Amino acid sequence: LAAHVIVRREPYNAEAPLAALGEVPTPVGTFYVRCNFSMPRVDVRRWRLSVDGALERPLGLSLADLRALPARTLAATLECAGNGRTGFAPLPKGEPWELGAVSTGVWRGAPLREVLAPAGLDSGAVEVLFEGADHGAIESGDDVRFARSLPRDKALHPDTLLAYEMNGEPLPAQHGGPVRLLVPGWYGMASVKWLARVTALAEPFRGHFQAERYVLDLPGALEKAPLREMRPRSLITGPAGGVLSPGVHKVRGVAWSGVAPVSRVEVSVEGGGEWLPALFLDEAQPYTWRRWELEWQVRRPGRHVLRSRAIDAEGNIQPEAAPWNRLGYANNAVQSVVVEVRE
Amino acid sequence: LAAHVIVRREPYNAEAPLAALGEVPTPVGTFYVRCNFSMPRVDVRRWRLSVDGALERPLGLSLADLRALPARTLAATLECAGNGRTGFAPLPKGEPWELGAVSTGVWRGAPLREVLAPAGLDSGAVEVLFEGADHGAIESGDDVRFARSLPRDKALHPDTLLAYEMNGEPLPAQHGGPVRLLVPGWYGMASVKWLARVTALAEPFRGHFQAERYVLDLPGALEKAPLREMRPRSLITGPAGGVLSPGVHKVRGVAWSGVAPVSRVEVSVEGGGEWLPALFLDEAQPYTWRRWELEWQVRRPGRHVLRSRAIDAEGNIQPEAAPWNRLGYANNAVQSVVVEVRE
Repeated sequence: LAAHVIVRREPYNAEAPLAALGEVPTPVGTFYVRCNFSMPRVDVRRWRLSVDGALERPLGLSLADLRALPARTLAATLECAGNGRTGFAPLPKGEPWELGAVSTGVWRGAPLREVLAPAGLDSGAVEVLFEGADHGAIESGDDVRFARSLPRDKALHPDTLLAYEMNGEPLPAQHGGPVRLLVPGWYGMASVKWLARVTALAEPFRGHFQAERYVLDLPGALEKAPLREMRPRSLITGPAGGVLSPGVHKVRGVAWSGVAPVSRVEVSVEGGGEWLPALFLDEAQPYTWRRWELEWQVRRPGRHVLRSRAIDAEGNIQPEAAPWNRLGYANNAVQSVVVEVRE
Repeated sequence: LAAHVIVRREPYNAEAPLAALGEVPTPVGTFYVRCNFSMPRVDVRRWRLSVDGALERPLGLSLADLRALPARTLAATLECAGNGRTGFAPLPKGEPWELGAVSTGVWRGAPLREVLAPAGLDSGAVEVLFEGADHGAIESGDDVRFARSLPRDKALHPDTLLAYEMNGEPLPAQHGGPVRLLVPGWYGMASVKWLARVTALAEPFRGHFQAERYVLDLPGALEKAPLREMRPRSLITGPAGGVLSPGVHKVRGVAWSGVAPVSRVEVSVEGGGEWLPALFLDEAQPYTWRRWELEWQVRRPGRHVLRSRAIDAEGNIQPEAAPWNRLGYANNAVQSVVVEVRE
């Protein structure tokens, strides 16, 4: 198993090594981990989910209750909204993620709508709030839980799951087990881990992790836009840099977009703007990355710079540079890999 | 001797390894090498410099003639105008320099004014042109020599040298020997290597390497500004990245500016904008970098991002990001070094 690349020990935050991302799904021990607070200890046998708020019948569900509901299995790529933060200048505060805060898992769980149906969601419920069991002090000094809301439509989407399995195993604690929310296509913060409570809201939620974090705070902008869908991005997973011999090499990577399936990946092998189309190794799927490769024939000894960009079915192109924002989110800028070709 | 980091074998272009830059002067075999064309073979015994153009008495000088003139020795940092090009997005054409195309040498030679005095420069001479012995095909298909001009005032400055020694030895071939121009404070392209001819001009020179290269081609700008003085910049030469143990570490580097002496270096050890003053190990000198260091006490395991910035005596601050330009010059953006602290 490829080890994590540690970003912070406590709370635990760790990246996947890029070279390990060609394996699909990403193994549980390699899959990136983002924790806002210390990992809560959740007793699986005693776990109960409270479902309350703007609905007719508040519920409490055990894990067995959840597992008894109709289930859905889907593959989904999750990316931390702060992935790539170290590429921003000036460097914003926050976890200094390089590029490995992204991974792909196969998730199984009950669609949230299956849980909400018997509860009878009020017609006036505009959002659904999700609270994790994790909590801690924020800058104000207040102790808060990690909590995020979804708009009603997204909450009721059949692919929004209460997931209890990852890659065919019970969801591990570091990935939010026993149960996490899974919001495929969105940045990872939406997929609340260690899920403890689901509350239907008649008013939009304005908590810390909704209104003060995970928003795009752009210089000069009047409003802070909430982060939702992952922006189109590709990564080169090999070569990782270093020395290659002259000849034919495969440049390999992954590409994803939460907005629409990735329809094209292009690779540049030198400065100046020429982009070559890569081949896909996977079919387009709604929520997961596609692996791609390019045969690169290189004769000239010396330094070469490899770059890739993703283009999605809606025509969104991964940009050369992403807009700087105060909290350092959504940096989907094109990556550079420098290699030396030597006899 | 620390080996070069090769960027291109032919023509030969190579960086200095950053870890080797703490040594002053930079050893001859470590000092970065920039060649626009194949290195010319110059026979030292037959070398003659033609001095002609808008002056009263054209001259021809042998190396012995040059060495017989009053000499000057000075330390000067030279930086390639394309240093840091790989940090620009989109990546421009041109040699993909990372950060090591900068070095400091001790140069000895005759001030150009000592050569021009007996030749009797015309009062109408506005520039002096310098031609190297190196030549080759450019994009147009023409075969041209590497040639650059200086404004009259800069050409006659007492520190503008015809240098024949580097670090106390005869100037080596790869650094432009037997004789190169040395224009301290300016980007390296001004210090024409393998000097063959000096011509006084009554009109400004508009050759390829003057008007089409080594100019700042900014999007939307009406004119291309010529590159001259090196912009303020600092580099972290250690730690180089990788793993450190918790405790006290020295962050070390160099800082220079061709505009004015460096008066301050600041170091950031995390995102968010706090800058700590570094200590200088060298006095301020007009043309050379100053070594600096900062004692950094680090306890928290995990990833840390080190950055530094130079500020010169005229108040110019090394920027977080430098303006993108079509040819990829003058990228003096702040560098980031990512380290992991581990017990």
